[in-house]
Amino acid sequence: MILINFKTYEESQGKRALALARAAEKVGKEYGVCIAVAPQHVDIPLIAKNRSVPVFAQHVDPEMPGSHTGHITPESVVEAGACGSIINHSERRLRADVIEEIVGRCGSLKLITCVCANTSRVGKALAALSPEMIAVEPPELIGSGISVSKAKPEVITDSVRMIRAVNPKIKVLCGAGITKGEDVAAALRLGSEGILVASGIVKAKDPEAVLRDFAEHMRR
Amino acid sequence: MILINFKTYEESQGKRALALARAAEKVGKEYGVCIAVAPQHVDIPLIAKNRSVPVFAQHVDPEMPGSHTGHITPESVVEAGACGSIINHSERRLRADVIEEIVGRCGSLKLITCVCANTSRVGKALAALSPEMIAVEPPELIGSGISVSKAKPEVITDSVRMIRAVNPKIKVLCGAGITKGEDVAAALRLGSEGILVASGIVKAKDPEAVLRDFAEHMRR
Amino acid sequence: MILINFKTYEESQGKRALALARAAEKVGKEYGVCIAVAPQHVDIPLIAKNRSVPVFAQHVDPEMPGSHTGHITPESVVEAGACGSIINHSERRLRADVIEEIVGRCGSLKLITCVCANTSRVGKALAALSPEMIAVEPPELIGSGISVSKAKPEVITDSVRMIRAVNPKIKVLCGAGITKGEDVAAALRLGSEGILVASGIVKAKDPEAVLRDFAEHMRR
Amino acid sequence: MILINFKTYEESQGKRALALARAAEKVGKEYGVCIAVAPQHVDIPLIAKNRSVPVFAQHVDPEMPGSHTGHITPESVVEAGACGSIINHSERRLRADVIEEIVGRCGSLKLITCVCANTSRVGKALAALSPEMIAVEPPELIGSGISVSKAKPEVITDSVRMIRAVNPKIKVLCGAGITKGEDVAAALRLGSEGILVASGIVKAKDPEAVLRDFAEHMRR
Repeated sequence: MILINFKTYEESQGKRALALARAAEKVGKEYGVCIAVAPQHVDIPLIAKNRSVPVFAQHVDPEMPGSHTGHITPESVVEAGACGSIINHSERRLRADVIEEIVGRCGSLKLITCVCANTSRVGKALAALSPEMIAVEPPELIGSGISVSKAKPEVITDSVRMIRAVNPKIKVLCGAGITKGEDVAAALRLGSEGILVASGIVKAKDPEAVLRDFAEHMRR
Repeated sequence: MILINFKTYEESQGKRALALARAAEKVGKEYGVCIAVAPQHVDIPLIAKNRSVPVFAQHVDPEMPGSHTGHITPESVVEAGACGSIINHSERRLRADVIEEIVGRCGSLKLITCVCANTSRVGKALAALSPEMIAVEPPELIGSGISVSKAKPEVITDSVRMIRAVNPKIKVLCGAGITKGEDVAAALRLGSEGILVASGIVKAKDPEAVLRDFAEHMRR
Repeated sequence: MILINFKTYEESQGKRALALARAAEKVGKEYGVCIAVAPQHVDIPLIAKNRSVPVFAQHVDPEMPGSHTGHITPESVVEAGACGSIINHSERRLRADVIEEIVGRCGSLKLITCVCANTSRVGKALAALSPEMIAVEPPELIGSGISVSKAKPEVITDSVRMIRAVNPKIKVLCGAGITKGEDVAAALRLGSEGILVASGIVKAKDPEAVLRDFAEHMRR
Repeated sequence: MILINFKTYEESQGKRALALARAAEKVGKEYGVCIAVAPQHVDIPLIAKNRSVPVFAQHVDPEMPGSHTGHITPESVVEAGACGSIINHSERRLRADVIEEIVGRCGSLKLITCVCANTSRVGKALAALSPEMIAVEPPELIGSGISVSKAKPEVITDSVRMIRAVNPKIKVLCGAGITKGEDVAAALRLGSEGILVASGIVKAKDPEAVLRDFAEHMRR
């Protein structure tokens, strides 16, 4: 699985978000690879209605429907068409008890959770909360263009081993610094089952071409 | 002006948000009163595209377009069709320096700001940051059904006086516990120029009828 | 082990903190039971200098010595005489990655860590971060006078089992609602190795007498 | 007034805090200038008992005495011997409503408040909350060695003018980048009535000599 985090980049907002989702859909079908997109909250319904790709939120709050203002309830993103959510991204870290609460809330709504961890040890900790996926991203490599699979391969192998020991059903994604198909291949060889990528696609001159490169290495 | 905060209520989410926005549009036109709506973030584009009412976000973050995840940039809500944002609601309080930053960011994008204050003194403080509107809401009355104009009229008169002394261009809205047209009339008599309302409309059996009652007292 | 959280109660501040620490020291020696105290930060040096009891901080921040204002560095509490710290108390919850950072910082300073968890699952998660102790406290029972060992015995047995499976060296403390010696006995029978208590001692008419009752049941 | 923020520097912790407070006391008496110190929380009682200088906390929380863990109540620092507190330092920013609450809490305990502001506009806003002092510090100059009185003199003159217009009783301190007596003199010429300093003293090779230089320019 390739999960593209659109972040709050200008290049992946509104109409450009829709165009990028179209590229994801196209390449995904071509290669038979699952490519999901995580646009900004206001862009979720646009993409969910017009494109046939899995749409993730970038974050959800634990708040229930009710008297809360400015929060992103899991219910609101489900109704908007999302099928999952990134949780605890390094740019949006959360309290341990709140992550448990959000994973539980999402589970009851059948919203797939991809929880992020900065280290293999935090990955192991969060595995106890039983999300569907854990994406391990050393924060210092995010947006660096230096692939975690090259710079810190042991972070991936350790994470895979430690997370599986807690709960073998959890899929481990590899994130941070992935820009080329060979980074994807390396991540898979090290035991991860997918990647979480942002600037590597969003900021690419030709995102569709890079996605195709990723997908090709994912399929092998 | 009547600003309806949809909060994260089930009754004002997705399709129900659109229906409520339609009622706001209809009553607003009938009575020549400006009625704005503040739906959840994912519902902004739906309403902005389909209804001709001013749409506010319930909150925006100060983050710039760029490498941020799960934040609501002012740019994203502008592109989604919003013309303003509630800021610092009692259910989403912010740091003083961050409010200044957000008001500045919104100003440069011509996004109207309605900053909330819990007391007249905080209202006076926030007036120094020059938002377009300040909504004064004693938190203990929110959702209480007890109108601030009855329970604490001095909060409104003090706020109007203190905020105008700092910056006479700022419009003062009155919030908390407003459920009837006469509450609206009282708020205007005390010097405010509009109301911020949530459960009084959203949780009403017949929201359109209550809105009509509000609008009638607003027009007088 | 009995760890008394003095919280910010008036009854356990300043001079009263010192008196309570004296009672803890006295009863601890009488019964040969380890009784530690966690006073407010400003009271740490007073107690550490004058009484021979283990002193814990109620919280430490991850910040390093340097250009930070208003934070509690682990170094400062070590120099003040503390030998450990409560971390992530339900009244002072922390981010998952920050808990890892603090536990690591404390470890390098030989400061004992007692990390709190609200559920057995969060307890299991935090066990991956290898603190010396985990105190499991269902927040709804804190200060209730209803002992967790009676109301929710499965929270303790589950926690003990799940935490030991991750790391058998971690000592599990039982917290929330403990007011009598028999609550202590029940907590030990269910597999925990100590208790975390606050109002049960601090707010007691005769704290020393209650401590004696606790210690007697701890010793058996 | 000279207020020395000890921050969490190693050089101003524990015994070194006491030594620095002694220097402040000595120079203050010599020159007849009020020099206050703001040590780390655990060091407040040590200094308050042994030295005759005004002691400030670096931060206090709004929490009341009671069931709170790890918070710094105003009551605890009063009992420990502090006579005031820094609030909302740029390294410890607070919500607007919380600043109002803390200033009120401190006022009722006769604890002097020095509220920090990053800009003249935020300074004006916080003036509405009536603290005794407002320290204006452009965060980018903190620890820079570049004096605000040289780099951005208009920040001081604007702040003094805007804050006085709201409440002429508030004393305006000037902070950030002050390392020499002439920086102090410049700050006073621009209308401020004192300075907030940290690394300029704490990290100096001979803090007492620098303090003497400051005091001399303060007296003139």
